[in-house]
Amino acid sequence: MTKPAYVAVDWGTSSFRLWLIGKDGSILGERRSGEGMTTAAQAGFAKVLQTHLDALSAPADIPVIVCGMAGARQGWVEAGYIDTPTSLAAILTGAVAVPGQSRDVRILPGLAQRSRQAPDVMRGEETQLLGAIAADAKGEQIVCMPGTHSKWVRVLDGQVTGFSTFMTGELFDVITKHSILSHAVAGSADMPADTGAFDVALKAAFDKPALATSLLFTARSGQLLHGLSAAGAQALISGTLIGAEIAGALASAGQGASIMLVASGRLQTLYEDAFRTLSLSYKTIDADAAVRRGLSAAAEAIWLKNESKS
Amino acid sequence: MTKPAYVAVDWGTSSFRLWLIGKDGSILGERRSGEGMTTAAQAGFAKVLQTHLDALSAPADIPVIVCGMAGARQGWVEAGYIDTPTSLAAILTGAVAVPGQSRDVRILPGLAQRSRQAPDVMRGEETQLLGAIAADAKGEQIVCMPGTHSKWVRVLDGQVTGFSTFMTGELFDVITKHSILSHAVAGSADMPADTGAFDVALKAAFDKPALATSLLFTARSGQLLHGLSAAGAQALISGTLIGAEIAGALASAGQGASIMLVASGRLQTLYEDAFRTLSLSYKTIDADAAVRRGLSAAAEAIWLKNESKS
Repeated sequence: MTKPAYVAVDWGTSSFRLWLIGKDGSILGERRSGEGMTTAAQAGFAKVLQTHLDALSAPADIPVIVCGMAGARQGWVEAGYIDTPTSLAAILTGAVAVPGQSRDVRILPGLAQRSRQAPDVMRGEETQLLGAIAADAKGEQIVCMPGTHSKWVRVLDGQVTGFSTFMTGELFDVITKHSILSHAVAGSADMPADTGAFDVALKAAFDKPALATSLLFTARSGQLLHGLSAAGAQALISGTLIGAEIAGALASAGQGASIMLVASGRLQTLYEDAFRTLSLSYKTIDADAAVRRGLSAAAEAIWLKNESKS
Repeated sequence: MTKPAYVAVDWGTSSFRLWLIGKDGSILGERRSGEGMTTAAQAGFAKVLQTHLDALSAPADIPVIVCGMAGARQGWVEAGYIDTPTSLAAILTGAVAVPGQSRDVRILPGLAQRSRQAPDVMRGEETQLLGAIAADAKGEQIVCMPGTHSKWVRVLDGQVTGFSTFMTGELFDVITKHSILSHAVAGSADMPADTGAFDVALKAAFDKPALATSLLFTARSGQLLHGLSAAGAQALISGTLIGAEIAGALASAGQGASIMLVASGRLQTLYEDAFRTLSLSYKTIDADAAVRRGLSAAAEAIWLKNESKS
């Protein structure tokens, strides 16, 4: 078996994922937990990390590369932002060392778009991007990274030229939990997904995104007047928000650019269905694999290059 | 002093308003409370009503006309819906009597748009509409009734041809209370409103409503990157939602129709500012006066006509 070379960590707001990576790049161990930034800020970042390193018996001298919210101001150590436009490779060079650790722990920076009209930030997705797109990629790519805050990134010849965040996932969450529509979706978790209702709402919102906040209300009126099911209401809300997101993202993107979807699990299925329904061509890259590849690229640039020189 | 003729009640989800009206149409007394449908469904509708009638010493034999959520399925007595397209006058004839009361209590119906693509319902706003527009009005009117669920109604020669609900007020509420943007607006209640930020977001969302769910996120990124204030973030969220609402409402309305704004208080100020900023012509009618006028029109049609005949 190959020797452990470094540890890669994707440390989000509410999730923690760690991989022990061997000298040949293989995955020697993996940990997943809900100890994201919010939990770790209370428990202590160093302690949370050490617990997971111990669980995998990670050697005391191998370094750790981290991406995500651990580098936010309210995180472990602030890792700042690389400003757009920027090359993907610049992300690799901005890692910040965590002081006072027995081993070398570094956190990757986020990306910032400092425009007055469309200020935007990301943390964690830049590392997915790094793993999804080759640094020497040619042409224009529109990268879609769906989630709580979906990120749409424009990449031209390996340069990040701009990006936009859509609050799709979080809006779905607060609308279905805290608005009057929470009654409309009650019980939908126990029903099969209504892909028909999803597709209809998706197309309606994509065609007329200005009506999105009105279409949402039809989840209620559709139940009152047409007996729409809870699963139908859930799908209608999801389809409306995703349809409006795609319309907005493509409105500010060049025409004819191919979409690269970086997603896994439920979101992958949902967005693949959406792109097919809207006749948009796309290519999927697994989000987990992408962030791991991005972390590995950073680790290799920081540590393995030097090692091979010495 | 004129003798009391009837009692008018606007009974919403979370608010209760009652007026004692004299034979000459003058207001002899008024009550306002938070005993809306939600509270009254627990306490008992008849009991809540009687408490307020007693407080004004309303004679035991005068009738009560009610509009709003008291007529919903989960309200006092279900008052059904009048289907669009409909004349405004049809609302007057659909009142449902509450059984088992010592006095004559009637609840006005709501309006339903049973289209498959755009099902929609209203309860209470139809009575405001009745009070805002003369039944014999000529030409096309676009009526905007902002609120938790903003209603935009198209009226042509006294006929309600269609309407759309936008979840603007409720979305503002859940976003500023339950999403990550709750941090961005924290403290804004103690600051003066940022009308500049409101106008910029309003125009941006009106011009590109597809980007609304992305513009919302700039309330956060604007704070991280440009030091946007809490009041600025609050205004940005409000402006974005209202800008998208107006874009959507006017997209489905005929061009050149004049807007009739039925509003009072803070919402009146906000929407008047929005229409001025977008160079849209409008005319304002006080929402309180409109609902009272609508209730009076119904009371007169039901009781006073018969009285004058007898």
